[in-house]
Amino acid sequence: MSRWEPNARGRLEQAALALYGERGYEKVTVAEIAARAGLTERTFFRHYADKREVLFDGSNRLQQTLLDAVAGAPPGQPPIELVGTAIAALGALFDAGERRELARQRQAVIDRNPELQERELVKLARLGAALTDALHEHGIPVPAASLAAQIGMAVFRVTFVRWLDGAARRSFAELAGAAFDELREMTSRSTPPTART
Amino acid sequence: MSRWEPNARGRLEQAALALYGERGYEKVTVAEIAARAGLTERTFFRHYADKREVLFDGSNRLQQTLLDAVAGAPPGQPPIELVGTAIAALGALFDAGERRELARQRQAVIDRNPELQERELVKLARLGAALTDALHEHGIPVPAASLAAQIGMAVFRVTFVRWLDGAARRSFAELAGAAFDELREMTSRSTPPTART
Repeated sequence: MSRWEPNARGRLEQAALALYGERGYEKVTVAEIAARAGLTERTFFRHYADKREVLFDGSNRLQQTLLDAVAGAPPGQPPIELVGTAIAALGALFDAGERRELARQRQAVIDRNPELQERELVKLARLGAALTDALHEHGIPVPAASLAAQIGMAVFRVTFVRWLDGAARRSFAELAGAAFDELREMTSRSTPPTART
Repeated sequence: MSRWEPNARGRLEQAALALYGERGYEKVTVAEIAARAGLTERTFFRHYADKREVLFDGSNRLQQTLLDAVAGAPPGQPPIELVGTAIAALGALFDAGERRELARQRQAVIDRNPELQERELVKLARLGAALTDALHEHGIPVPAASLAAQIGMAVFRVTFVRWLDGAARRSFAELAGAAFDELREMTSRSTPPTART
């Protein structure tokens, strides 16, 4: 926010993730995060409401990117393609700079704390609801919109885990595309269920 | 558990859901639930650990039904069919007796309480993880197993909401089959993404 503190936000995030990993999320204070980043507590609070927000602030950007991608898509695109475009657009966030390493640190912190896991699930559920609304506003009828959005979130979850794993070092956008291809392959090989009550 | 208390478990559930709806989940005590059901607190605690468990106890049965359906499927079934069979098998629970009305009451209670919503999301996430493991144990390789399980959970979520809505009074099993048909239709009409990084 201030020209005397270049990339304060990023430095605070890196400092927080490093400290959470070293000492456990519960034990770390905002004062320590600010000190590690070489900044003041006041600066911390200009960027984040509390130490938890450092972990979840990114989900607002995720949501905005998803919604912008849907809003910017040509009208008449089939729902699954629209969702595929939106999920792949998240690559712009995930595939930038050192995001994968920071995301891994973040995930390790969350995996150790049930309260943070709940928070993550709530954020994902909201993302799914926002995607449903966006698809609906883009002209997809409600029943198809919720199915497509939930399918999109399913592909997102799988892609995110694969990207974090990242042995193959493939980009998020590439992994998202591959997961949608797998989905198509899976559903085309299956036949409609025979027994229906 | 005792022959002098026929259907004590069901009576306690009905009493709890009625009271949660009338007075708010937070305000209701176990003593009140037991009294409304015409049973003792001791009987309550023979069936449920606390008043929250009345709402979430069913998820163990959901999970068992899903896993049994996967384990009992013929080997070599494509992943999406396997998942379709498993989700449709939940109809045995949802389509029994007055389940839909009780499920609606339960959902209304959960929708009013953020802590219960978080709990519900945690239960669903565990269900998805258990389904992934079951598919893997049934011979599906890990990457396909997690995608198929997440797709299954997506269809489950959509089906559950439609079943609760239930204007059309269609059974859960029927709605699940229809949602998988929609998924097939959606993915077959889409074309692979053109741009891949």
